[in-house]
Amino acid sequence: MAKNVLIIGAGGVAQVVAHKVAQNAKEFGTLHIASRTPSKAEKIIASIRDKGHSVAFSAHALDAMDSAAVAALIRRIDAGIVINVGSAFINMTVLQGCIETGAAYLDTAIHEDPAKICETPPWYANYEWKRREDCEKAGVTAILGVGFDPGVVNAYARLAEDEYFDKIDSIDIVDINAGSHGRWFATNFDPEINFREFTGTVYSWQGGEWRENAMFEVGREWDLPIVGKRTAYLSGHDEVHSLAARYKQADVRFWMGFGEHYINVFTVLKNLGLLSEQPVTTAEGLEVVPLKVVKAVLPDPASLAPDYEGKTCIGDLVKGTLDGKPGEVFIYNVADHKDAYNEVGSQGISYTAGVPPVAAAILVARGTWDVKRMVNVEDLAARPFLELLGELGLPTRVIDASGDHPL
Amino acid sequence: MAKNVLIIGAGGVAQVVAHKVAQNAKEFGTLHIASRTPSKAEKIIASIRDKGHSVAFSAHALDAMDSAAVAALIRRIDAGIVINVGSAFINMTVLQGCIETGAAYLDTAIHEDPAKICETPPWYANYEWKRREDCEKAGVTAILGVGFDPGVVNAYARLAEDEYFDKIDSIDIVDINAGSHGRWFATNFDPEINFREFTGTVYSWQGGEWRENAMFEVGREWDLPIVGKRTAYLSGHDEVHSLAARYKQADVRFWMGFGEHYINVFTVLKNLGLLSEQPVTTAEGLEVVPLKVVKAVLPDPASLAPDYEGKTCIGDLVKGTLDGKPGEVFIYNVADHKDAYNEVGSQGISYTAGVPPVAAAILVARGTWDVKRMVNVEDLAARPFLELLGELGLPTRVIDASGDHPL
Repeated sequence: MAKNVLIIGAGGVAQVVAHKVAQNAKEFGTLHIASRTPSKAEKIIASIRDKGHSVAFSAHALDAMDSAAVAALIRRIDAGIVINVGSAFINMTVLQGCIETGAAYLDTAIHEDPAKICETPPWYANYEWKRREDCEKAGVTAILGVGFDPGVVNAYARLAEDEYFDKIDSIDIVDINAGSHGRWFATNFDPEINFREFTGTVYSWQGGEWRENAMFEVGREWDLPIVGKRTAYLSGHDEVHSLAARYKQADVRFWMGFGEHYINVFTVLKNLGLLSEQPVTTAEGLEVVPLKVVKAVLPDPASLAPDYEGKTCIGDLVKGTLDGKPGEVFIYNVADHKDAYNEVGSQGISYTAGVPPVAAAILVARGTWDVKRMVNVEDLAARPFLELLGELGLPTRVIDASGDHPL
Repeated sequence: MAKNVLIIGAGGVAQVVAHKVAQNAKEFGTLHIASRTPSKAEKIIASIRDKGHSVAFSAHALDAMDSAAVAALIRRIDAGIVINVGSAFINMTVLQGCIETGAAYLDTAIHEDPAKICETPPWYANYEWKRREDCEKAGVTAILGVGFDPGVVNAYARLAEDEYFDKIDSIDIVDINAGSHGRWFATNFDPEINFREFTGTVYSWQGGEWRENAMFEVGREWDLPIVGKRTAYLSGHDEVHSLAARYKQADVRFWMGFGEHYINVFTVLKNLGLLSEQPVTTAEGLEVVPLKVVKAVLPDPASLAPDYEGKTCIGDLVKGTLDGKPGEVFIYNVADHKDAYNEVGSQGISYTAGVPPVAAAILVARGTWDVKRMVNVEDLAARPFLELLGELGLPTRVIDASGDHPL
């Protein structure tokens, strides 16, 4: 029987997920979207109607920090798959709701404690991986971090393992957004989450151990397809931890592209203390978290979509050996902001994050990825996922010894 | 009979005023300092004791936005001179208290409405000058803007009028702080006041009319004594208006020195909307004024004093003609941050702002400047004021046809 789908969250990524689920409604049973603010979910459903999809889609109010409420909603609508694309603070309560009810759990980012910024590694082991046994016991499929990065880039690493090398020496994930939103400054995601990613120590896995750097301390120029020469900086990112656990012998690094303007604004805000999540008290006695004020003055990331132009390029440069012979492969995707907006009303960053969990949900629905345990994406065969992603709008390309070609 | 003195305010400038009044206690009757937070006033009195001054000094609680409370305190302590060095928002209520009681009124900055940033000229005419007749009628001496700039720089212009030219063609006031506080970023005054000065239109008086520019739009390199080559930017400042009223035929410009770092931080904060005095609402529903949060995260200007090193140079380049022959004179002061701290526990910016109103108070106490009407500093003979300032620690120097020499 087809599985009913529950999307949790109603932001930019949730909008993409909802559109893609609606486009692929034949793979699923009934469709549902839940948010603390149901009007935001209703708005997403309306935008799906605007694109001509007449599929049934229900909106629900949900406090996803309350696992009992999550479980109750799952039971009420008999959801078989939960796609969690809400805030990074709700992973553990939503996962708990899935374990209680047997629903499959998918998310796109690591759990965060709102009071802590960039915890020390091993990040997944701080929260999610503690529930591995519970998932196994309950026979619950939980696929962690199945957005683009983490997510597709983990599958790229697995593809290199499966089809290119018998030993992997290094995985360098590069994320370049060469798009332009035309604003003086804006973040592509919730500013609170976006800045939190970069205010702590940068952890990378090199030489079999965790290395620590400061943000923007280590930069490297990359020359990538379509987007050309771009400087990217060693950054901390979810997938570095899980990939380092599977590929212990390899160096695993994540590189995020930033322009000088972004770095300057970030540096000013950080050095002044305006990115702090610790409250300060104004002269008038008002207690306020500076980061929340910064968020309040910045453009809503969703508002950027109509004017966003240009492309993103995200890929893995994997080096390794096959039968003792060294080689390298660059596996990547190029996405276009305008195309994303035209298709689902979101900018390219949300598109690349929102399409992969729908591909994963389809694979769970079909049984291909319904593994009845907790996994990261690199634990699963990559090809079915990447081929399906190509059909859904995120084609994979490869640069290897034979040149630059589609997967 | 010696006049009792009431200082209103307990910030960095008030500290200098209090120390200087205590050093010159023989000129006055009893000494008083009032603040909304009396503990801050007590702390200033304690710092005077620490410097070995045993003169009697009383602290009072006062809401200076309440003119009846101001008048009541003036009556109770029989103050003959009120030195207003509190926030820029209290000028009109303190002045009203003086008019009601007959006390002399001195301040160092123009009145501001907290809800408005950089009102259009004529600034003094918006508030203070409307009370000219009332002062005249009540026989109240009110000396407006008798800090350094405005204040001493107005006297420099008057000195040029009195001793150098029969026609003045231009007055360029240049304010360079070549000191270093060793912090990543800080403002020398209350950030709220400091930034408000630069977020609006820059007004200058040129060619007999008000010209409008954006902040940092017009820069010029100056080569000044001691501090050397520095870039200063056309800025709006109180004294431009009052000097333009007296010297209608002259160009009157104010130039403030800024480093690239200050301009960058200012530009980021301004463009993001973080210098706005209009409240924003956070995602959590908290209403907050961004500028007040910026103020809360920045260093307290008073905390900079112990580490502040280097010098300030503030002066007037005045061009004019005498008997039809063109000439120019640069009248200036150089102050030292460390010297200021050693003497009164404040940095040089507070020192240059706080010493002049005490010189003015002494001249009022002696009768020299007790003019029984409202004036700006350029309306009064400059020499007695500048000579007294030299004795109090802010010597005037002059660069004219005969070279660089003391006044």
